[in-house]
Amino acid sequence: MAPTLLSYPEAAEQVHLFIHALAAEHASQPQSAQSIETVLLGSATGRVLATPVLADRDQPPFARSTRDGFACRAAEANTHEYLFLAGRLRAGEAPSAPLGLGELCEIMTGAPVPEGADAVFMVEYAEHSHAEDGSESSPDFVRLAASRTVEAGENVVPQGSEARAGDEVLPAGTRLHAPQIALAALCGYHEVSVARRPRVAILTTGDEIVPVEATPGPSQIRNSNAAMLAALVEAAGGISILLPTAADQEEAVHRAIGSVLPPFEADLLLVSGGISAGRFDLVEDALTRFGARFFFGGVAIQPGKPVVFGQLPRLGSPALPFFALPGNPISSAVTFHLFAAPLLAALGDDTAPQPRFAMARLAGQWKGKAGLTRFLPAYCDFGPAPEVRLIPWQGSGDLAAYGRSNCFLVIAPETTELENSALVQIMFT
Amino acid sequence: MAPTLLSYPEAAEQVHLFIHALAAEHASQPQSAQSIETVLLGSATGRVLATPVLADRDQPPFARSTRDGFACRAAEANTHEYLFLAGRLRAGEAPSAPLGLGELCEIMTGAPVPEGADAVFMVEYAEHSHAEDGSESSPDFVRLAASRTVEAGENVVPQGSEARAGDEVLPAGTRLHAPQIALAALCGYHEVSVARRPRVAILTTGDEIVPVEATPGPSQIRNSNAAMLAALVEAAGGISILLPTAADQEEAVHRAIGSVLPPFEADLLLVSGGISAGRFDLVEDALTRFGARFFFGGVAIQPGKPVVFGQLPRLGSPALPFFALPGNPISSAVTFHLFAAPLLAALGDDTAPQPRFAMARLAGQWKGKAGLTRFLPAYCDFGPAPEVRLIPWQGSGDLAAYGRSNCFLVIAPETTELENSALVQIMFT
Repeated sequence: MAPTLLSYPEAAEQVHLFIHALAAEHASQPQSAQSIETVLLGSATGRVLATPVLADRDQPPFARSTRDGFACRAAEANTHEYLFLAGRLRAGEAPSAPLGLGELCEIMTGAPVPEGADAVFMVEYAEHSHAEDGSESSPDFVRLAASRTVEAGENVVPQGSEARAGDEVLPAGTRLHAPQIALAALCGYHEVSVARRPRVAILTTGDEIVPVEATPGPSQIRNSNAAMLAALVEAAGGISILLPTAADQEEAVHRAIGSVLPPFEADLLLVSGGISAGRFDLVEDALTRFGARFFFGGVAIQPGKPVVFGQLPRLGSPALPFFALPGNPISSAVTFHLFAAPLLAALGDDTAPQPRFAMARLAGQWKGKAGLTRFLPAYCDFGPAPEVRLIPWQGSGDLAAYGRSNCFLVIAPETTELENSALVQIMFT
Repeated sequence: MAPTLLSYPEAAEQVHLFIHALAAEHASQPQSAQSIETVLLGSATGRVLATPVLADRDQPPFARSTRDGFACRAAEANTHEYLFLAGRLRAGEAPSAPLGLGELCEIMTGAPVPEGADAVFMVEYAEHSHAEDGSESSPDFVRLAASRTVEAGENVVPQGSEARAGDEVLPAGTRLHAPQIALAALCGYHEVSVARRPRVAILTTGDEIVPVEATPGPSQIRNSNAAMLAALVEAAGGISILLPTAADQEEAVHRAIGSVLPPFEADLLLVSGGISAGRFDLVEDALTRFGARFFFGGVAIQPGKPVVFGQLPRLGSPALPFFALPGNPISSAVTFHLFAAPLLAALGDDTAPQPRFAMARLAGQWKGKAGLTRFLPAYCDFGPAPEVRLIPWQGSGDLAAYGRSNCFLVIAPETTELENSALVQIMFT
């Protein structure tokens, strides 16, 4: 593998090429029953639609009043003459008859506007007349206040204007959150077909690593990367499978890599650690012995520069994509978000782009050298005036700093200085 | 209840006052066993710490090399004389002896820097000499390349510089995501104490509402609000409890409100629908009959203007806060995010602010009247140049439009026009 450093966009492009090839392969094959699950809508949040959601009828299914008021012919109401109050429609009630000439109908928000009516004027603008016997209990005539007019169509949503029966209202590949859950419910989907969650094997390597529940010796540390990567994988919609930690020995690493090949089923392999200049040989050798193809082996980013992307051939199955992530935890997290998260989303049939960025104002300043795209741990106050500040850190191993962060500040490779209040880019975690 | 319209900030302040009173009440009482759960760290993502996470030892626990290279005394290395290669330290190995004068030690990333050494120079800048017998297999002397110097402290993270043993590295009230999970793992927490998830009772009202699995009659619609609110509650860290839909009848609504009082256990009540001018009487009457206190009953926002916030007294328990949310689904979602989500977070002991905002560029234009703070369904392309566009909609009942959205565009009450490419505020959903 050539140790050429790609720029961040070049490396991202390599991942996108892989994703496009994957999509083309999927498109050429019928969806297998194995790749789809049916889940109750109440458990579907965060899942990705495998088949589209269709409108089972027009939406709205009838011309719907958006106000409490009076359904009328706008032209008649605008004469400000009294009109005969022919009835009262609550939500859930069907109009018993079309609206006659010279009539109006009291109507509640959400109720069907009767045939013949073309507008609703608001209850606040109505003036009541009382029947000739003067009793207050029989206000049978209503007019629109002289100070107001109503336009045809006002406060009425026409039948089918939101969606037509049969329309694909949510395409396959949509990740379901509250808005999509609501729409699927409206269309009668109490169950939905979703893509199977991709299985991600996580292999941590390193002689210094002990389990979280162990008491580490003086030169050992606990396996925080496995816990972190599992949380990242689950948050990105995958199923994490933690493999036993492999020691920094040829045979141990070789055996560990071999364990993720068939009959073991995995959609993605994350190897954590063992890829810095002095240590990568072991992991690279093991991957190479299994016939790995490498797409990149270094990206001009800070942190995360030594990240490796490739694939392992599998007999009778598509190749297994893998990332070898740097062992320093913040490097590992950054490269997960930049490269593994988009691939993981695509493996789960999600069509939305990853990673996700937004903008905020910088609180404080930054100066540095040009050349690397930087992703620095930061805390954004996501209040009404979103403001992000860098978290002081001791480098990419500083989990105490990372634990105080809720995003990364992104700094373009040509930037050498950021002023206080500068508009900056943040990456979501 | 006075129908005074509060501004959005005024209404948000009412919710904050309630939250502050809640926090004061919590602070005055010892934490009850009932309010805390112990969960495995692997299942703790999204939960809120009930007790702080403490560093069980210094971080890093030893002076840690951040590079593969040579641990040395910087002053000696900068002479560019050959130094005796006294050993080799891999991660996980403890130095067997302090570094003698005139010595250096090969060291791997993550390994402990031996006593006596004050810097690490990178393996790329090392020049090897071979022992006097000329054999290549015994390169026992190494010097720093003449073109380079190394500073004291370079590539070494001092012991305890990230955290000191006993430090509170994650305070109670922290919501756990990957960064915090990693830090807790590092500190040996394979289990964590988290706040119990708040229980949210969801009551939908309306004669026109039928269950999702039913076939609605011509003037009926399915209960999309219950499914949507359940998804919003779960995403905000709560447990949703769906009550049977109440018909628009005094007794039905009264019975439904009564059902969430003790012995039923709920932390928050969401009533959906029945609060527009013509329909609220029923819900308001029922709440009033149970002694409700109303904090606000209308906010100058679009959509969601009629939203109601209050509390119901409970015998022997703190009052039950409630929101009566407008029945139109987008109004319901907006008011949930603005008012219910912050209260729900606080009920679950989360100290981070809600709702969450960021900035993006507007694709397209907007014109409108001043006076209301607007939250319009929008789709943000969260790519490297975040760009948000409004989703055309037929008003706050348009679930097809909402289903295509992934955020809300926020428009300040004084704004009447937004130009293409304007820097705008978005609210996360």
